[in-house]
Amino acid sequence: MVYFDSDYMVGAHPKVMEKLVATNSLHTVGYGRDEFTEEAKRLILDVCGIENGDVFFLVGGTQTNAVVIDRLLDHNDGVVAADTGHINVHEAGAIESNGHKVLTLRGCEGKLLAVDVSYFIREFYLDSTNEYMVRPGMVYVSYPTELGTLYSREELENLYAVCRRYDIPLFIDGARLAYGLAAESGELTIKELAQLCDVFYIGGTKCGALFGEAVVTKRPELLPRFRSLMKLHGATLAKGRLLGVQFSTLFTDGLYEEIGKHAVELALRLKKGFVKKGYKLFIDSPTNQQFFILPNETIDSLRKVASFELWGPRGEKETPVRFVTDWSTTEEDIATVLSNI
Amino acid sequence: MVYFDSDYMVGAHPKVMEKLVATNSLHTVGYGRDEFTEEAKRLILDVCGIENGDVFFLVGGTQTNAVVIDRLLDHNDGVVAADTGHINVHEAGAIESNGHKVLTLRGCEGKLLAVDVSYFIREFYLDSTNEYMVRPGMVYVSYPTELGTLYSREELENLYAVCRRYDIPLFIDGARLAYGLAAESGELTIKELAQLCDVFYIGGTKCGALFGEAVVTKRPELLPRFRSLMKLHGATLAKGRLLGVQFSTLFTDGLYEEIGKHAVELALRLKKGFVKKGYKLFIDSPTNQQFFILPNETIDSLRKVASFELWGPRGEKETPVRFVTDWSTTEEDIATVLSNI
Amino acid sequence: MVYFDSDYMVGAHPKVMEKLVATNSLHTVGYGRDEFTEEAKRLILDVCGIENGDVFFLVGGTQTNAVVIDRLLDHNDGVVAADTGHINVHEAGAIESNGHKVLTLRGCEGKLLAVDVSYFIREFYLDSTNEYMVRPGMVYVSYPTELGTLYSREELENLYAVCRRYDIPLFIDGARLAYGLAAESGELTIKELAQLCDVFYIGGTKCGALFGEAVVTKRPELLPRFRSLMKLHGATLAKGRLLGVQFSTLFTDGLYEEIGKHAVELALRLKKGFVKKGYKLFIDSPTNQQFFILPNETIDSLRKVASFELWGPRGEKETPVRFVTDWSTTEEDIATVLSNI
Amino acid sequence: MVYFDSDYMVGAHPKVMEKLVATNSLHTVGYGRDEFTEEAKRLILDVCGIENGDVFFLVGGTQTNAVVIDRLLDHNDGVVAADTGHINVHEAGAIESNGHKVLTLRGCEGKLLAVDVSYFIREFYLDSTNEYMVRPGMVYVSYPTELGTLYSREELENLYAVCRRYDIPLFIDGARLAYGLAAESGELTIKELAQLCDVFYIGGTKCGALFGEAVVTKRPELLPRFRSLMKLHGATLAKGRLLGVQFSTLFTDGLYEEIGKHAVELALRLKKGFVKKGYKLFIDSPTNQQFFILPNETIDSLRKVASFELWGPRGEKETPVRFVTDWSTTEEDIATVLSNI
Repeated sequence: MVYFDSDYMVGAHPKVMEKLVATNSLHTVGYGRDEFTEEAKRLILDVCGIENGDVFFLVGGTQTNAVVIDRLLDHNDGVVAADTGHINVHEAGAIESNGHKVLTLRGCEGKLLAVDVSYFIREFYLDSTNEYMVRPGMVYVSYPTELGTLYSREELENLYAVCRRYDIPLFIDGARLAYGLAAESGELTIKELAQLCDVFYIGGTKCGALFGEAVVTKRPELLPRFRSLMKLHGATLAKGRLLGVQFSTLFTDGLYEEIGKHAVELALRLKKGFVKKGYKLFIDSPTNQQFFILPNETIDSLRKVASFELWGPRGEKETPVRFVTDWSTTEEDIATVLSNI
Repeated sequence: MVYFDSDYMVGAHPKVMEKLVATNSLHTVGYGRDEFTEEAKRLILDVCGIENGDVFFLVGGTQTNAVVIDRLLDHNDGVVAADTGHINVHEAGAIESNGHKVLTLRGCEGKLLAVDVSYFIREFYLDSTNEYMVRPGMVYVSYPTELGTLYSREELENLYAVCRRYDIPLFIDGARLAYGLAAESGELTIKELAQLCDVFYIGGTKCGALFGEAVVTKRPELLPRFRSLMKLHGATLAKGRLLGVQFSTLFTDGLYEEIGKHAVELALRLKKGFVKKGYKLFIDSPTNQQFFILPNETIDSLRKVASFELWGPRGEKETPVRFVTDWSTTEEDIATVLSNI
Repeated sequence: MVYFDSDYMVGAHPKVMEKLVATNSLHTVGYGRDEFTEEAKRLILDVCGIENGDVFFLVGGTQTNAVVIDRLLDHNDGVVAADTGHINVHEAGAIESNGHKVLTLRGCEGKLLAVDVSYFIREFYLDSTNEYMVRPGMVYVSYPTELGTLYSREELENLYAVCRRYDIPLFIDGARLAYGLAAESGELTIKELAQLCDVFYIGGTKCGALFGEAVVTKRPELLPRFRSLMKLHGATLAKGRLLGVQFSTLFTDGLYEEIGKHAVELALRLKKGFVKKGYKLFIDSPTNQQFFILPNETIDSLRKVASFELWGPRGEKETPVRFVTDWSTTEEDIATVLSNI
Repeated sequence: MVYFDSDYMVGAHPKVMEKLVATNSLHTVGYGRDEFTEEAKRLILDVCGIENGDVFFLVGGTQTNAVVIDRLLDHNDGVVAADTGHINVHEAGAIESNGHKVLTLRGCEGKLLAVDVSYFIREFYLDSTNEYMVRPGMVYVSYPTELGTLYSREELENLYAVCRRYDIPLFIDGARLAYGLAAESGELTIKELAQLCDVFYIGGTKCGALFGEAVVTKRPELLPRFRSLMKLHGATLAKGRLLGVQFSTLFTDGLYEEIGKHAVELALRLKKGFVKKGYKLFIDSPTNQQFFILPNETIDSLRKVASFELWGPRGEKETPVRFVTDWSTTEEDIATVLSNI
């Protein structure tokens, strides 16, 4: 059986595991005050081209979104997001549980358009009753989006311009960042991305780590007493150096980049194979998530050799499906799929 | 100047004020444990035809919605509401501030259709990832809606049937209930309404009281320790008898009914007048809120003698407006408007 | 029967009621944007000697404490209070329900000593693990306290000096402020009090109004977007002018002062009477709450003519009791009690 | 340098690491639905002697306490805890951030006495104003306590009897459970502990794992929809099998027991050594945390070879200190300390 269900089905990239094993019996101070964490911070700020920024390491994505958003928003502010945004759909109400409304706009292939955000915020400020409405206090986007798509440079620039005009932070959820950076059609380097938002996070869990996300900001004044807020949210790892060790490995010798490239290359090979055989794309994604519309009989026969997700309820004749690659996907895995369709 | 801005611009119906004055120097126990409150409960349960229910008195509508919904929902449940619902628009995020997501469906003239709710909930239960989604834990509707419209008996029956099928409570926001009950096309008596939901509230603030809303339930087991939760939310009035005095007056000799009828009758006369002169309705409301689309010059000239709200941003040539009547509106007020258009 | 249970058992001072009746049929804009509210603000800022401050009107005490404290505290800050403080005991956990810890110190006759607060905060900052502790983010005191006692000028100056040293706000709960200002041994005028804290509230509910509390600050920058936060907490009255009308009446022709003096004078007469007959004080209060220790048989016989509260569980032979006076207490009421002990 | 600062300074027990490495490249479903997690559950229920219970795996201690307590408490209930309890001191207000008050009682060497809890709860129910107070909704204790002490069987039985009398859950924080089970004077087996409370957690982070805590209950009906609540709190690990792999290793061939015994044995050897040389105990702990009072000069010289924590601010002449052992502590480490005092 070959596996394409998601990018969190397997452990860490072997180099990450090796480093965890190699450092296992060292004694360090806890809670991320250790030298590995310091090194990881330095490496990340460097790769992002940020001089006076800050980096914080958390365990998982939902947690990271919840803590960052809780920090960036005032009591009665909400976060603007696409209706397909992870925080609006698959985080069990984590944002609301901290008291904040998710203000959803209809996304366009998973992306939030600057023009829609601008219109929405302007409308809010024009409304004479807005004192009793939830103020748009920040904007949340994912890069890549939940549908595998990417913002172009211009799209992100426009979005960030809207945020700056209204003086609200733009936060980018980079749970699958490695794959966005590696996409051929991806127009943004991590340095550019770091400049086109206020806070973003570099996904580890889905990009080669056992777990872990690195929150990066060029404006540390936006995250005051963040470590204390992390603790309050149960997001502080006692053996914090585990995060430092993993991220310093991922950002040494270009491993993070390599992981992204590997997965995207294989994902595109998969796409090409499906398209060549005449299958329809459900959405045209340049990253490690690929979405096809397959006849139900194809799905049934393919499932004997490959594991993957239906993307929504099974249709009468055909159903959208998702295939996800990661560091562990091999050329043979791809070949197995393509030779069975 | 005549006033049609809203139904909370004037004090209480004279009979309510008289009773407040008459009882002002009496000593009673605090926090709603007094005889006036007991009497109001009895009168309300009686008019609702409920034998073993309960009634709680709160001060305002946003507060009432927040406390009731907080009580009815489990930690990770959300409340299904129309996108135009008061809790979704004009309560400054009160529901979310208590940790609950408002799950919005596109309303139809302000109403939530049973078929949409049913589809939404079924979709949730069919989704294999729903463990990480917000469960629809109750349904919220307004009667009349924020657009002045009313559910037919069949519409409400269908909605309640969906709720019972999934075993979740239906809560009706009756901030303007008097006007819904008084509408000619309104198909529901208060007795029927009380049976077609689990919890509802009888609006006082907008229907003749100085302030106050009465939460009514035929299923008191749904609101355990509700008085304590009210206190936690700052919703308990020390001189609680003020609410008892007002509601017992409103529900003596049919005053609540009378107030509703008076306002609706004048509102319909206003509608007829506008329509007769060829003005367009923005929405066809049978209650005390009337919505017209007026040419901007008509608006400008009319505003010299009448106060009313634009319903949205001023258009280029014409703009929707809202006129609201209440117990204090007079025939002369209506005549003033109609003779100036 | 004469009543001494509490100061919220009767309606409003007749002058307040008169004004409510006189203004009842006027039309004003809602939500406290009316001229009565403006006038009340002006009168209060004037009596407090504050030039560039702000005033907000809310409905009740628990609500007021919750909203003010929620506004003054950052996410992971707590409020320092005496263990007997109202927010720690009798508000059903309202402060915690908004996410904030009440950091309690042992009070001294209901008062928080500057030395204890100073020591507590210093200890926090000395603790190397304080990143994982709740930071003392503000101080809450009541004037008068829940035990009827008053801070001397020096005590309050010292407390405020500690707050300023650590740059955290001092908030005074003045639910019974009128009686503190009226106490003979009270050293502080309202002007001085306004300068010896950052935010305080002037109690209306227990001091002659039907309901209502006026939050006053000389530093409005501490309460940004406060009206929106009030709405989120369900603390905004639709017919907001009811609060304006009441407070403008209370602060016209010295009515608030008069109410305080009347009640305190009668309370002290009661105290003198009890002491003269040899009864013990439970606590020596200079304000409208009086606490005695009475033999159980005295309690039982007195209860035939007077209503008052036991202050704790009934003892074997004697029990502490509380008597509270207000604007409605008469000399005859006092005489009735004193002639029955 | 030898390290005694805490039990989270080093990685996982080698056997745990080995298993993580061995399973690293396997593909499993995410979020704890994998076979390793199932195996760990089975092993834990078995060792606890629970037939129809449930086990949930979370990442860290603060998170675990927050989610369990949030689940067990109703909206306006609080959790009774010793003033030294971890949730009251070192969790940055995590419990309050979820809306719940920590109701603290003075502990006795870190322990909560049944008689105090019983008195406190009875007093609450006797108080006629308790409708406006926070109801004691559950009891929280740590085993071992934050001071390394242990409840005797009788003490825990009495505490649990109080809880059952008032029908509220007893929750045991077992962050350092291994060391409590291994203590010679410890009277309780894990089977007995599991029966003497409603919910407890088996600490992994401080007892040989990289991270992870296992929540165990014999009454799964107390934790409905717990997985969804975990997600809402950001406490769900995407690669959930990491927890399953670790806990199944810890509970195979008695590894968890062995780790506890090893650390406790060395801790007691340390204690004996200090006592023999005439040093005073700060508290007499039978577990892996040892507390001494050392002269400042001893501290200064010892710190050249050993790392350990001051337990409070440095005194004038002497200061309490804490030494903590774990799976990685060696006999040589102990010898190094003892030969330097």
